[in-house]
Amino acid sequence: MTGILPSYLCDRWWTPEEDPDAADVRDASTGDLITRVSSRGIHLAEALAHARTVGQHSLGALTFHQRALLLKQFALALTAHKEELAEMSKRAGSTARDSLSDVDGGIGVLFTYASKGRRELPNARVIVDGAAEPLSKDGSFLGRHLYSRLPGVAVQINAYNFPMWGALEKFAPAFLAGVPSIVKPATPTAYVAEAWVRVLVDAGLLPDGALQLVSGAVPDLFAHLRLGDLVGFTGSATTAATLRAQAAAGVRFTTETDSINASVLAPDAAPGTPEFDAYVKQLLVELTSKAGQKCTAIRRAIVPSSSVDAVVSALRDTIAARVVIGDPHADAVTMGPLVSLDQRDEVRRQIAVLRDAGGRVLIGSTDEPEVMRADGSVGPAPEGAFVQPVMLGFDDPRTPAVHEVEAFGPVASILGYETLDEAAELVNLGGGSLVTSVATGDPAVAAELLARIGAYNGRVLFVGRDNARTSTGHGAPVPHLVHGGPGRAGGGEELGGIRAVLHHMQRTAVQGSPDVLTAITGVWHAGAVSATGIHPFRKSLTELRLGDRFASPTRAVTLDDIETFAHFTGDTFYAHMDEAAASANRFFPGRVAHGYLLVSFAAGLFVDPDPGPVLANYGLENLRFVTPVSPDDEVRVTLTAQQITPRETDDYGEVRWDAVIHNQRDEIVATYEVLTLVAKEWVEGDGARVTT
Amino acid sequence: MTGILPSYLCDRWWTPEEDPDAADVRDASTGDLITRVSSRGIHLAEALAHARTVGQHSLGALTFHQRALLLKQFALALTAHKEELAEMSKRAGSTARDSLSDVDGGIGVLFTYASKGRRELPNARVIVDGAAEPLSKDGSFLGRHLYSRLPGVAVQINAYNFPMWGALEKFAPAFLAGVPSIVKPATPTAYVAEAWVRVLVDAGLLPDGALQLVSGAVPDLFAHLRLGDLVGFTGSATTAATLRAQAAAGVRFTTETDSINASVLAPDAAPGTPEFDAYVKQLLVELTSKAGQKCTAIRRAIVPSSSVDAVVSALRDTIAARVVIGDPHADAVTMGPLVSLDQRDEVRRQIAVLRDAGGRVLIGSTDEPEVMRADGSVGPAPEGAFVQPVMLGFDDPRTPAVHEVEAFGPVASILGYETLDEAAELVNLGGGSLVTSVATGDPAVAAELLARIGAYNGRVLFVGRDNARTSTGHGAPVPHLVHGGPGRAGGGEELGGIRAVLHHMQRTAVQGSPDVLTAITGVWHAGAVSATGIHPFRKSLTELRLGDRFASPTRAVTLDDIETFAHFTGDTFYAHMDEAAASANRFFPGRVAHGYLLVSFAAGLFVDPDPGPVLANYGLENLRFVTPVSPDDEVRVTLTAQQITPRETDDYGEVRWDAVIHNQRDEIVATYEVLTLVAKEWVEGDGARVTT
Repeated sequence: MTGILPSYLCDRWWTPEEDPDAADVRDASTGDLITRVSSRGIHLAEALAHARTVGQHSLGALTFHQRALLLKQFALALTAHKEELAEMSKRAGSTARDSLSDVDGGIGVLFTYASKGRRELPNARVIVDGAAEPLSKDGSFLGRHLYSRLPGVAVQINAYNFPMWGALEKFAPAFLAGVPSIVKPATPTAYVAEAWVRVLVDAGLLPDGALQLVSGAVPDLFAHLRLGDLVGFTGSATTAATLRAQAAAGVRFTTETDSINASVLAPDAAPGTPEFDAYVKQLLVELTSKAGQKCTAIRRAIVPSSSVDAVVSALRDTIAARVVIGDPHADAVTMGPLVSLDQRDEVRRQIAVLRDAGGRVLIGSTDEPEVMRADGSVGPAPEGAFVQPVMLGFDDPRTPAVHEVEAFGPVASILGYETLDEAAELVNLGGGSLVTSVATGDPAVAAELLARIGAYNGRVLFVGRDNARTSTGHGAPVPHLVHGGPGRAGGGEELGGIRAVLHHMQRTAVQGSPDVLTAITGVWHAGAVSATGIHPFRKSLTELRLGDRFASPTRAVTLDDIETFAHFTGDTFYAHMDEAAASANRFFPGRVAHGYLLVSFAAGLFVDPDPGPVLANYGLENLRFVTPVSPDDEVRVTLTAQQITPRETDDYGEVRWDAVIHNQRDEIVATYEVLTLVAKEWVEGDGARVTT
Repeated sequence: MTGILPSYLCDRWWTPEEDPDAADVRDASTGDLITRVSSRGIHLAEALAHARTVGQHSLGALTFHQRALLLKQFALALTAHKEELAEMSKRAGSTARDSLSDVDGGIGVLFTYASKGRRELPNARVIVDGAAEPLSKDGSFLGRHLYSRLPGVAVQINAYNFPMWGALEKFAPAFLAGVPSIVKPATPTAYVAEAWVRVLVDAGLLPDGALQLVSGAVPDLFAHLRLGDLVGFTGSATTAATLRAQAAAGVRFTTETDSINASVLAPDAAPGTPEFDAYVKQLLVELTSKAGQKCTAIRRAIVPSSSVDAVVSALRDTIAARVVIGDPHADAVTMGPLVSLDQRDEVRRQIAVLRDAGGRVLIGSTDEPEVMRADGSVGPAPEGAFVQPVMLGFDDPRTPAVHEVEAFGPVASILGYETLDEAAELVNLGGGSLVTSVATGDPAVAAELLARIGAYNGRVLFVGRDNARTSTGHGAPVPHLVHGGPGRAGGGEELGGIRAVLHHMQRTAVQGSPDVLTAITGVWHAGAVSATGIHPFRKSLTELRLGDRFASPTRAVTLDDIETFAHFTGDTFYAHMDEAAASANRFFPGRVAHGYLLVSFAAGLFVDPDPGPVLANYGLENLRFVTPVSPDDEVRVTLTAQQITPRETDDYGEVRWDAVIHNQRDEIVATYEVLTLVAKEWVEGDGARVTT
């Protein structure tokens, strides 16, 4: 008898002894038994406790950068196994192209979070949100927002269609946030999830308790959740509501449910234009990739009434020319089966509902198609879950069913519109979507449409002639952008780069003194303790402390300096050169020094000329000129170590310096931040201990 | 018979003809009838439709800056009436000090949003979120996040304790976002809400449909809500759950419910320290202001076991010395009654629950207090809702009731702890709070505590000797910081500056070409259409268009220039001066030009010397040095109008310029943004048409 698929719990593989009621999982094309799935006898409370103690502890020991580097190693480990994962996925109906989105796509999410975690987050454990808010006039009391990781576990309930991408796009941000995950794949493709988890376990890279896998049901899991836990759910709206009702208040939910996504052909994209061709090509892709089993697939093609026939005809032709339905083990196959016979039957039922509501089948049929078998032969395959691509037409584009019924397969409807207003109205009848795409070559049309449909969509994609080839496509969420949508789409947000990391953290407003905020955030706040003495540019990264400061001597700025600078640089703006004209400008008292002269003089005042641990000034931020400097004013600059970010994989790191230029009246002339690279180790006379 | 309090619906005042079941609202101190509240016969569907059509339309015609300026006018109109609003509030039990938080606090929220709306938002209707994400190598396809306002109505359900602040802190961000509000005050203080709404109506400042007021019940309102609407709710968790269940999926909820807030006395804050004194003073304030009827009040004083007696004794003394309970019409009164006899009875019931759970009354009692009447006489006042300040002690600090029961009046419990770990554990037993405060003089203790309690709190306030006087206080949300908390506190977020505005908007990921993103966001994106020709510095703000560009000639950077600049500014860093030392630095090919020299030369290349519409360069942002410039390299700069922000109340505005410096190999040397002030009108030879 085929064995039961293991779960990975409490850092060990576990399998029920036996379960006669275990679910059979079959090859989508052949019906052959692949594995059996059951979690009978599982101790979910133990798994939760393990995550909340061991998992929280091991992840809490790591900084964002350290977690990001582990994500990169996970990605590399999976990359080494991606051929076998893609091969295995064929049994679930995935073609090689489908595996590009699931297997490669999942690995890509890990790489993106590995990269963004190091580029966009501090090498720390909390994230500062927004600017400091002064709450007292004397600067002794201020406020700032801070994100800390949630103290619980992230339970991730995945759909069957993307056993890798769908799981990893939830796991990666949770891991980066420092929250342990319990992954629950859908039964029909649980063996693919088991495979990628096994790769990570075998690689020995997983921190203890950071990842657990439940192959099978999680009957009483939700009753055990509590404040500090969160649930990421992809599936039906009904199930989402049920789970939510079982969980305690305070458990955070991100849900991604049904979505009747739309794709609009704009009025300018008439037949014959590159936009029209791009539109039809995209329709084909969304209808056939994953055999239409994508929550982001196009369900409603919204096109000018005058173009309906042209779109249908072009789509019919391109389907005839390009679509080969069959077992993905045959190389020529471009569209696989649905994941199971149950799903096929369900899709047939939904098509029937759409037909009953007035839908006419314009392309394809629900008849069993001739398919290509694994050996290349062609014929019927009743044991496989094959469905033809189907497009339906409706006389009344406001037919409720077309905006409400999701046939989760290669099925879309086409609706005609007369005005852009009506096109937007039809899009919004979907009641909230993951994505709407628009083919247009006119940015004004894009702006007008977005103003009307933006609030009803989590993502809106515009494709035109310039990016028909470079577009990432209607149906492909990218890790950089949020995935999720309002209303029917579930109201959740996943991905979006660091946004999804923040979803695993609690934002807290912190109020206190500059010293308290400095200690809590790892960012020096004006007014906090500072230390002068040895020039901080002579301290290595490991010696440098927040608040280490250099206070420069003063330097006069003469009219001669201004003249010299003007003629040297060519910046002879009248405010620097012409007393009468400058005085006529309300912002200047008369001739004033160039702002760039001031920051240049400031650099001259704070720079330490000899080789030292400060390797380079790579940038400057938030420069504001506050008070003009007149001839014979004096300036001085104060430079304070504001944030220290050691790199994990280099022998240097970034230091951000708070810089303030004052004049002789102690007025603030300018404020900015100086960005430098500083060596971790430095020995005078010996130089930086560098490795490159 | 006392009349029924009007509602403000569809831009008209409306009152039910008569309702024998109207709720009586009585003076909290005297029991005198003030008004009667009923909404019998109200047409809520009409009010919703009015908001969604007329309200959306009138607010949509305004930019963020225009809405912000209206908020300022609302604040000024209310300021002119604040004495009478405070006077009226006395009947609800508010002392003059209580009205500082409700009346002045509410007006303060309007001022803050008026200010933040203009300083932190563009003068536009959408908000860009985060950086552009390149999604194709050739730059033809990119992504960016954008917030658009929700298309529905914001229903705001307020608690009785802050009829102004509580309503305005929900209304202000909704208004700024461009979403019309329907305000539903709590019955016991509905007459104060009616009064402030009347001030705004009488001032003639409200855009049509932007604000409606329902005095009385809203029985079927929630069944009418739909995608695009949102609910802001303050009240009990049970009611919140009921309302949520009535509303359609897709209706956004922000709930702020019960919260058993804690205040921790840190181990270092021993009796005799300024922190100890600040702690006791804050306890007094939170116990007595609004007679403890604040969702943010301290319910649990968590102190070192060794300090319990000292805290109780000090608090008892300060209550005896400072608290005068009575009718707020008497000037000497420092603590008013609860809002109603019902509330008083409810508080007595909750105290009984706490006593049954083991609570010992350490301060005060549930006996009816002697109070000061309006005429200054002292004696019993059984018709008033007076309650004494009460503090309870518990032998077991983990007693569940103390962490779960909210006696919504001048009632707190004191709990002893042994270790900081235990203090944090006790805080977190509250199951999620709006706020926890900590008295400590030790930033390390602050950081350690925050790491443990941060995720359980919406706000954490640290008070020490340096800011005992400047602290805004445990119980006072400030509009700059989020108000709301996880778990029991409801899981919502209000305020937090622009964060609450975003809550009224949908975030959408937009993908498309640079031209499409430029048209949609109002921010020029690299790769979008640009126009050279007349120098854009000679165009007034009204003439200038996104993409207007100046491309400079090239300029060589000689070794002589580097030497000159080094000696002129004093910046003789070795990377500019010493070929051997520079070459030894891995980031430089040899001696290189100063970064500040390059931006100074760039300014010399792009500046237009004569008076013109560009009035000043007030700053610079996001400067990054990408490629070093060696002696005899050539540089050129390209400056493109990236964002144009006209000011509503000035004759100029801000223009942000995208600046890129290239070398002779067309490599990017540096990128940054130049910030300028530009006159709206400019006539050559005539100068800026300025008014100041």
